[in-house]
Amino acid sequence: MSFIIRPTTRQDCALIEGLIRELAEYEKMPNGPKIDAQVLIKDGGFDGGQKFYHSFVATIDDQVIGFVLFFYIYSTWEGKAIWMEDLYVQPQYRGKGYGTKLWQAVAKQAQLDDCCRIDFYVLDWNEPSIMFYKSHGALNMSEEQGWNVFRLNREAIGKLANRT
Amino acid sequence: MSFIIRPTTRQDCALIEGLIRELAEYEKMPNGPKIDAQVLIKDGGFDGGQKFYHSFVATIDDQVIGFVLFFYIYSTWEGKAIWMEDLYVQPQYRGKGYGTKLWQAVAKQAQLDDCCRIDFYVLDWNEPSIMFYKSHGALNMSEEQGWNVFRLNREAIGKLANRT
Repeated sequence: MSFIIRPTTRQDCALIEGLIRELAEYEKMPNGPKIDAQVLIKDGGFDGGQKFYHSFVATIDDQVIGFVLFFYIYSTWEGKAIWMEDLYVQPQYRGKGYGTKLWQAVAKQAQLDDCCRIDFYVLDWNEPSIMFYKSHGALNMSEEQGWNVFRLNREAIGKLANRT
Repeated sequence: MSFIIRPTTRQDCALIEGLIRELAEYEKMPNGPKIDAQVLIKDGGFDGGQKFYHSFVATIDDQVIGFVLFFYIYSTWEGKAIWMEDLYVQPQYRGKGYGTKLWQAVAKQAQLDDCCRIDFYVLDWNEPSIMFYKSHGALNMSEEQGWNVFRLNREAIGKLANRT
């Protein structure tokens, strides 16, 4: 058995689309994902355009069994940082340290790029993930420091943008 | 009196550093900011390098009285989005709609770039900001959907990256 973590390629995007859907189902929001492999190819810069995200896949014997997707953010207190948007390992491959290895790949990238932090969301009912992240030293900023995430969706953006 | 919103320039970075410190004091975390104008100049791409953030300033008669700082993020459900990191208007200029105008500039940018959402943090005790954002249709994702923000800081990143 050969376990490898490598950068996502254009050819992986169809598989990533499937894993994004699996993750949304696990998160109890199966209707969440609206984008497909074509959008992932374009926004990943695989057509030569701007790269809106970065990603690694985990493979066992060349079969993709998980992925991590991240991008660069900015803190006005400490500068460059990373946001980890998705970290997912298929259920039958969990509990073997593969998720940690994927997360570790992002931590190594953060060190290379001198990033001050890796931030990410965890849903408050997702106890296994909370235990996993906390066991590696992650802090719950919402719980400990009262950071709530607010969102303006597309409709509200339109109303604000067109307000006179 | 002439109120204008315009893109931040290299010359504004020293002023932005001061406003970031004012905002941190308002947030009761005066020791938060670790970066200075030089870092803001470099990371804003004003030396010709990569642009890690985007920003607008609000001015009255050419005097900077507030700023907004944002960058592009990515949703694996809906694609390109914007994170609004800081929105700040000096206390003596509040209540006149200037904050809304700065936020609106970001909303217009989001429309131009076909972004699906504008996300941002609000501290849970900051009732005036919560009221302000909600009055424009922002949703509290932490409260309504249980999204907690987790963070791996520099020390924890090092531990994870070097784990064998």
